[in-house]
This record gives sequence, C-alpha cells and structure tokens, in this order.
Amino acid sequence: MEIGLLGLGKMGYALALNMHGKGHRVIGYNRSMDRVRSLENEGALGATSLENLVNQLSKPRVVWLMVPAGEAVEEVLRDLLPLLEKGDILIDGGNSNYKDTLRRAEELKSQGIHMMDIGTSGGIEGARHGACMMVGGNQEEYGKLESLLQDICLEDGLAHVGPVGAGHYVKMIHNGIEYGMMQAIGEGFEILKESPFDVDYGQIAQVWRHGSVIRGWLMDLTHKAFVEDPELSSIKGVVHASGEGLWSVQEALALSIPAPVMTAALFTRYRSQQQDTFSGKVVAGLRNQFGGHGTIKDES
Amino acid sequence: MEIGLLGLGKMGYALALNMHGKGHRVIGYNRSMDRVRSLENEGALGATSLENLVNQLSKPRVVWLMVPAGEAVEEVLRDLLPLLEKGDILIDGGNSNYKDTLRRAEELKSQGIHMMDIGTSGGIEGARHGACMMVGGNQEEYGKLESLLQDICLEDGLAHVGPVGAGHYVKMIHNGIEYGMMQAIGEGFEILKESPFDVDYGQIAQVWRHGSVIRGWLMDLTHKAFVEDPELSSIKGVVHASGEGLWSVQEALALSIPAPVMTAALFTRYRSQQQDTFSGKVVAGLRNQFGGHGTIKDES
Amino acid sequence: MEIGLLGLGKMGYALALNMHGKGHRVIGYNRSMDRVRSLENEGALGATSLENLVNQLSKPRVVWLMVPAGEAVEEVLRDLLPLLEKGDILIDGGNSNYKDTLRRAEELKSQGIHMMDIGTSGGIEGARHGACMMVGGNQEEYGKLESLLQDICLEDGLAHVGPVGAGHYVKMIHNGIEYGMMQAIGEGFEILKESPFDVDYGQIAQVWRHGSVIRGWLMDLTHKAFVEDPELSSIKGVVHASGEGLWSVQEALALSIPAPVMTAALFTRYRSQQQDTFSGKVVAGLRNQFGGHGTIKDES
Amino acid sequence: MEIGLLGLGKMGYALALNMHGKGHRVIGYNRSMDRVRSLENEGALGATSLENLVNQLSKPRVVWLMVPAGEAVEEVLRDLLPLLEKGDILIDGGNSNYKDTLRRAEELKSQGIHMMDIGTSGGIEGARHGACMMVGGNQEEYGKLESLLQDICLEDGLAHVGPVGAGHYVKMIHNGIEYGMMQAIGEGFEILKESPFDVDYGQIAQVWRHGSVIRGWLMDLTHKAFVEDPELSSIKGVVHASGEGLWSVQEALALSIPAPVMTAALFTRYRSQQQDTFSGKVVAGLRNQFGGHGTIKDES
Repeated sequence: MEIGLLGLGKMGYALALNMHGKGHRVIGYNRSMDRVRSLENEGALGATSLENLVNQLSKPRVVWLMVPAGEAVEEVLRDLLPLLEKGDILIDGGNSNYKDTLRRAEELKSQGIHMMDIGTSGGIEGARHGACMMVGGNQEEYGKLESLLQDICLEDGLAHVGPVGAGHYVKMIHNGIEYGMMQAIGEGFEILKESPFDVDYGQIAQVWRHGSVIRGWLMDLTHKAFVEDPELSSIKGVVHASGEGLWSVQEALALSIPAPVMTAALFTRYRSQQQDTFSGKVVAGLRNQFGGHGTIKDES
Repeated sequence: MEIGLLGLGKMGYALALNMHGKGHRVIGYNRSMDRVRSLENEGALGATSLENLVNQLSKPRVVWLMVPAGEAVEEVLRDLLPLLEKGDILIDGGNSNYKDTLRRAEELKSQGIHMMDIGTSGGIEGARHGACMMVGGNQEEYGKLESLLQDICLEDGLAHVGPVGAGHYVKMIHNGIEYGMMQAIGEGFEILKESPFDVDYGQIAQVWRHGSVIRGWLMDLTHKAFVEDPELSSIKGVVHASGEGLWSVQEALALSIPAPVMTAALFTRYRSQQQDTFSGKVVAGLRNQFGGHGTIKDES
Repeated sequence: MEIGLLGLGKMGYALALNMHGKGHRVIGYNRSMDRVRSLENEGALGATSLENLVNQLSKPRVVWLMVPAGEAVEEVLRDLLPLLEKGDILIDGGNSNYKDTLRRAEELKSQGIHMMDIGTSGGIEGARHGACMMVGGNQEEYGKLESLLQDICLEDGLAHVGPVGAGHYVKMIHNGIEYGMMQAIGEGFEILKESPFDVDYGQIAQVWRHGSVIRGWLMDLTHKAFVEDPELSSIKGVVHASGEGLWSVQEALALSIPAPVMTAALFTRYRSQQQDTFSGKVVAGLRNQFGGHGTIKDES
Repeated sequence: MEIGLLGLGKMGYALALNMHGKGHRVIGYNRSMDRVRSLENEGALGATSLENLVNQLSKPRVVWLMVPAGEAVEEVLRDLLPLLEKGDILIDGGNSNYKDTLRRAEELKSQGIHMMDIGTSGGIEGARHGACMMVGGNQEEYGKLESLLQDICLEDGLAHVGPVGAGHYVKMIHNGIEYGMMQAIGEGFEILKESPFDVDYGQIAQVWRHGSVIRGWLMDLTHKAFVEDPELSSIKGVVHASGEGLWSVQEALALSIPAPVMTAALFTRYRSQQQDTFSGKVVAGLRNQFGGHGTIKDES
C-alpha cells in the first residue's frame, strides 16, 4: 500500500526501508533533505515539502509520523493538518504521551481525520527487519493497515491493543517494565563487581542467555556490551530518561498504585545525572550539627 | 560417567533423567523410596541408603546433592561425609547460600574431599532437557565433570564461573535480578489493569514476546499464565521468597551498594504475606492524633 | 481587623475562635448553618449566605477560605468572585495544589482581586491556640494581614515565604516530609514489634520524646497514641493520603529529583488500601510457571 | 556513686563531666592521656591504665565503656575482663550491635559479671547536660544504677527497656528512624531548591520549628545548619553511615518486614559515597545497544 512517512531519523528511516523492501510505496519526508536523498538512493520515494508529500498520496491518505514526542509532533501537526482531508489516516508512530494522543485524536476527529497510535519496540534493528508494534485506533482503520503492519512486524509481533491512545499507553508500560528490568540487571552486575569473586561479566551474561530464567533480549544486549568493552570502562554511568519511564510512574501515582521498582529505576537514573545533591548536603549538615561528625568540604 | 544423585525432588529427579538419557550411569537416592522406585522404572539405578549409594560408586566418587538449602544440606553432610574418602567430589547443586558453601568447602578440604557448587537455572523443564549451570570449583575437578555437564546443559548454557562458592554466588545474583524483573512485569500489568483502557493481558504479553525490548522467558511465562487464567482470578497475590533474593540484598548491604530495585521487589513480597501491618497502624494512629482523621476500626 | 471566614469545618472553626479570641471581628459562613450558629454562640458573628457575608465586610474586604482543596474551592470561587471587588483580598487557607493557586491568582488578578495562599500546619489544636503558617502573596497585602496573622500563630510560627503560590508549595513539601517521617516511625515500631525483645511501645515513645535525636511533635503523638491503645489493636493499618504527599512526589518527578523516601511512604499508604494486588498475582503466577511453586488459591 | 568511665572521646568526655557535675565520683581512662589530663583539670579523677582504673574502684565495680562499636570494644574487653571480678557491672554505652552485646553478655555471665547496655541519644550536648538513655539489663543491676542515670538524663529521658541487648536494640531502631527522618527533610529541601520559588531555607526551617507537624530537634538543627551556611555551599553531600541504620535494615530483612523508608535512606547514603556506579554503566551500555542512544565517555 501507499504510505507517507514523515520523519526519517534512525527509527523512521529503518521503517521506511522495511516497508519499501516489502513492496509498499513509501514516500519519505524529513526536514533535512539529505535523509530524503539517502532514502531515494535506496529506491524509495521522497518528498520536498509537506505539501509535496501530501500531494503524492492518493486519498484517503495514510501519513505516518516518526518524530520526537512533544513539541516536534505539535509543530508537524500544525503544518500538516490543514493539508489533510476527511477520511485520511494519521498515524503517530513515535513515543508520544498517551494523553497528548487522546487530545490530538479528539481534534482530528472534528476534522474527520482518523488518528492511530503505534508504539514500536525492538530498536533500530527491529524497525528495519521486523518490529514489535502495539496499535491503538478504530477497528475499521486498523483493518486497512493490518496487512502492511504484518509485513513490517515479526510474526505475532503485532497487536491491535485497543482504541486510539491504547498503543501509546501499552508502549509506555512496556518501557516502564524495561526500566525496572535494566536496573535489576545493573544492580546484579554491580554486586558481582564488588563481590569476593573475580568474575568475567561477559561469560556470566553469556551463560544467563542460555536456559536461565532471566534470558531474553536484554541479556543478549548485556552480553554484547561486555564483549565490546569487558569492564565498560569507556562508558560513564549517566543514564538519561526519555519520557515513558516517567509517565509510567506518573500513571501509577494517578491510579494510586504502588510501583516501587519502576520508580526506583527512574530515580536511579535521575541520581546518575547529579554530581552532588542538595538532600545530601542537608543530611550531612544535620549529622554535623548533632554528632560533631565532620563534613567533607565542597571545594568545587 | 558415573554419578550418585542425592535428592530426587522435582529438580533432582529431572536432572537424573537428563543424565540417564545422555548415557550416564546415575544412581539416585532419596529419603522416600517411591521416588527411587520411579527412577528405577525409567531405567536408571537406585540406592536403598546412603551407604548403598556410596558403595555403588567407583572411586573417586562423584556425589551430587539436590536437597533444599540450609538444614537439609547440613543433615545430609553429617551422614554422608563419614562415608566419603579423599579424592571424592561432592557437588552441591541446590540453592545454598554461598557463605555456607565456602564454610563447607573448607571443612571438606580438610578431609581431602573436593567441593563444587552448581547454581542451576531454567526450572524443571531446563533440568530435564537442557539446563543453565553456573559452576564453582577447582579447574581440575571441573575438567573431570565438564563433558557430563555439557551433556545436560543447553549449548553455551554452562560456565565455570570461578572457585568454589562462585557458582552459588552467581546464581544468587541471577535470582536477585529475577526478583526485580518479575516485580517490574507485575507492576506493568497492575497499571494496565487500572488503566482507562480495557486491555487483553494475554494479547499484550504475546506481542511483547515478539520483537520487544522486554522479550524473554519471563514474558513467555507471563503469556502462558494469562492463557491459563486470563484475569489470574484463581491466584492470590501472595508471593513467597526462597532465600536468594534476600541474600542478594544482604550482599548489597554488606558491600555498601545501593540495590533499590532488588530490595523493592523483596519488600513487596514480604508485604504480600502480611494482612495488616503494625507500621500502618502507627501511621494511621498518628494521623488520627493530629488531624482528627478517623481511623478504620480493626474488627478482625 | 475584620475577616470573613468561609468554611467552618474543624480547622476553619478553630481558626475563627482563635481570631475572635484575639479581638478580631470574625464573620463566619458555612453551608450547613448549625456550624454558624455554634460560632455565634461563642460570641463571633455569622452570615446567612455568601452575599450576606460579603455585605457585612467593609472594603477592601478580606475573605479567608477554609474549604477542602479541589472542587470545593472551585465552587466557592464561582459563587464568590462575582460578589467581590477590585482591591479585595482573597485568602485560600486550605491545602490547595499550588498550581491551582497560581491559576486562580491569575484569574483574580484580572479582576483586581489579590490572592494570598496560606499553608497551615499544627492540626486543630494549633489552629485554635497558635498555628504555624506559611504565607504566599504580595508584600503589600501581607503587610495588611501581618498583625492578624501574628496574633493567631505561635511566636516565630509565621513566615511570608514568597509570592502567591509559595505558601501552598511550602506546605506541600512540609507534608511530603511528614509522610516520610511518619513512615520511618511506623517502620521502627514494626521492627520493635517483631523483635526478640518484648518492649513497651509507649515507654519507648516516651523516652524518645526526651532528649533523643528524633524527639518532636510526631513522637509526642506517637506516645499519646500508645497511651490510648498500647497495642493499637483498635486501629487498622489502612492509611489514606489527602493530596500533598502525592503532589510532593509529582513535583520531585517533574523536577527530575530522586525522592525515594517520600515516594516509599506514599506507596506504602497506597498498598495499605489494597487487599490483594494484581502485581502480586502476576509474580505468583510466574513463580508457579517456572518453578512449579504452588500458588495460593484466591477463594474470595 | 562511683563509676569508671573508659573512653573519653566526645561523648565519653561529656558524660564524665555530666556525672562529675552531679556529684558522682568519676574515674576516667583513655588511651591517649591528654584527655585524662583534661578531665582531671575539670576536677574529676583520672586513671593511668586499665589496672589503675580498676584498682581505684570499690567492689562491686561499675565500669562504663564509651568506645567505638566493633573491634575497639573487643580489644578493651580482652584486656579488661581479666581484671574484673564476680559481681562487677560492665556497661557498654556505645553503639554496639545488639547481637555482639548478647554474645558478650553470655561470656561475661559465665564469669559472674553483669553486662548492661545503654543506648544514648541526643548528641554531645545531651551527653553533657541531659541525655536520653535506653537501658538494657537485669532489674537488680538497673536498680543500682537508676539514681545515677536519672541524674545525667533529662526528666523522662531514661527508660529501662528490657533485658541486656534491648538497650542497643532500641537505640538501633531509633537511628533507623533518624535515617528516614533526615532523608525526608533532605528531599524536601532539595525539591524546594529546584522549585519555581526562590525560598529562604533558613526561614522555612524556622517557621517549621514552631507549631508545624514536623517540628522537633532535627528541624531545630536544620535551621541552625542554614543559619551557619544559608546555601550549605561549604558542605559536600557525601553522607557516611555508622552502622545502626544498616543494622536496622538488616534486622527488618531478618524479620521479613518491609522497611522501604529506612532502606531508601541508607541506599541514598551509599550512593552519595559513589562517584560513578557500575549499575549505571550497565544501564547506559544497554541503552546504547538497543537504541543507538549515545553514552557519555568516561574520561576519568
């Protein structure tokens, strides 16, 4: 089928190649044109502007956004919506907050445009050769896209999980779980590092990949990371958080549900971004007050 | 090769069949003789007593314990050690605390007996058809066992991770990670349950198995659990903890390492075993004191 | 000075008596008139309606709200604002979310009405006999109220902490700290309860009140709670959360700051409100899958 | 009465002066003699050696240890016990682990020496002018010491909380609570620091001291710390942990009780002592693997 793909970053570009390779007519657009040129060199089509993208699509159009969550999506929608028409389908394939998606779907609905949200997992390799997709939207529009989606997903790696918003919601939770799992793995190896045994991290990740309870893709990647850098000595332990882990925790709070593991994983990331903490200063200052415990002078 | 296997519970029995199926001479012993009879019916050998077990083994003997950690291991060792001789190999294949293993290895060493510790993962299916084993012990004795171990493990599912104690240590950490991962999954589905979307848990676990970042055996099992009982309505959320999660946290504490995710997972299990908490009573009582907030009468 | 006090619940009523006792002209209003009658019986004045309240106040008026945060404040403002005039001062003395306060202040400003927010701590006794107040608002309006506020607060128990919104913000953080402190006390006594020693909780709270590092009002109240009910056997450990603890955690998240203690205290309260958890069912179900660990049947 | 006080560090010295000031006959001993000389200059008595200390005491003797927990107590006991006799009382007034205390009490009992344990709180000022003491030991020996203890404690700041070991146990829990409370305060001020409001920390601590729910000695000290250094700019947020917070958490674990707040406070201290973390490296490395997220090079 025919798809306008807007946003040719790492993920968008890989998806475009995936669709193209399966025989779909992909027209890619990106703000910086070199990505469009690259895509064209791979045999897919490119657009020179939003108008040009929209004009190349037959109606009802299918436009798939792969742009960063938040302001970038807002901007694209501002420019794109006036060009779309009743009956068109707009897919947000990025990591948008599901509340934004619900709000936007409501706005688009008033123009007769169908919004769908697709949470995509599996990294760049998955996007290129077989992704995992959680789709939200109406049954009717999902039916129109299903065969395309099956082509670009792994077998059983596609699910229509609910109405619009549900795709991003389920992806958000996926990432919340991912945060917890990754932190669990990190803690395990940190204890191993300080343990009385002089272990080979790569060997341990390798054996855990084969038959253990905790085998899975994250352990595969752990192994790969240790093969590339056996002590991770080139990596600083500063971990950024891109939104969905935070939203998972906020959702738990809004629902009055304890989510201590997801939250601990998130707070650990925040802490990794701090050099020193004001809370630590307060506690050190207090100890100094009551116990005459010396504090370490901050000479930074 | 020839192995005396002591303890024919679920895991031990499956291992015995696995070894037997690969052509090894397994002599099984168990306190209750019906398990021994069953094993004999499968074509393996049985022993009628510890003495009988030891006598059937040619020297130097290899005795493999598959008994519950703690007191059960102590008891078996009390009875077994007088029967063993210099040069024999004693394997503890259970989930013993590595500190106990180090202590026991020291004692056995004074008698010239070699201790090895094997942490086994992968559940009963793994024990039967291809396990994941983390082995601690001397290189020389490991060499003697290696081909047997390769036979009963998955490919790459065997690692000699260090000297005696290291096998149980690495298995302990494996389980600590497992606790964190399982709790992360649990939190994710609890948020999904309370979410504004009416999702199908089994469908979501299924799609997450194929291509997602969090795919792996735990997600396979999550899927299976939801297939068997879509709302888990027959299961109470009371979760026991068998030792290694606790020991992982204790190890982190002893090493002054933060392990917030493992600890949150452990505390959540402890909390699941409580009906009401005294800490909750204290906090409710305090709120009542200062705010005139009513408390709920305990009429139990 | 002259004050219209709107909302004669426990806190509002106590504040009204406090102001009246210090010689101020308090006109109280409450939806259910019996509270107004009671106040009149104490010698203060009452109003029969919002209009009547506003009409009894000389301009520029000072109206002090003591109504529950959220919808109740919204409703009162809807009815009250049309009655107020440029130059009047509106105080929100309840536990509103500071973001609501900022929004409302902006709206009121467009009508020339000055908003102030006062976070009040110290419980009902404090409100009656000497409170702790954290005030947000303009310097000029604060100056008009200062002597009244000094009359009803403890010495040094009054601070103008910043512009409008700051009062509720500082109160929010106060409550976040309070959650953490209370949970710490709760955990301590729970460990004592399970300890090998048969201790007298009331005696311990009492000794900790006198000279210990953790002495303070919360320990005074802990002592009082144990004097009234030595084992807290009449109290269920179900702890509600009224908003500010949650908001503190949400604020920490919005600022990317780790707040593990406040969050643990909040999650513990949420957990206390649950009988069973879906996360626990998932984890129990998983253990059952891989280990053949039995689960407890849910027969509820 | 007559007391041999062994260990004239900050706390021991202050206690010696306190006892002396109340008319008791204190004989102080310390490894470095300058502290002994100072005490003598204050009018109390000094000893030149352990033998000399013991010889100056009439029988049955009362010897009070104020030495650091752990090895220092072991060493003193090794040298001291041979000098003591049946019927003597040995007090451990330091922060020993209650399990050590129980073990030592058992040993001393076999020599007919009575052990008592006193947990002391309130800092150096408290030790000097009125402490808070939690005493463990037999009723009979407690009776002999009670009037001395009342002299050096605040009114109601003395409690005989149980048999030997109970004093250190209750003090341990006190410190666990203290960890949680301090961390709660720290988190609160860190949020305030990053808040949209430009608040005066000292002013806020001051108002919270007067009438708020969280008033108490820790808030008094928070205020003092901010008066001395309004932004705590001279203090690094590195917080050491001296044992009792850890033991409280270990005790909770041993009793299968959730103690999330105490544990979060402890882990936060541990994290403050780390520059970078291996767990962070693992998580950053994982993100790099699956998402092509860049990592920060470790150039240290």
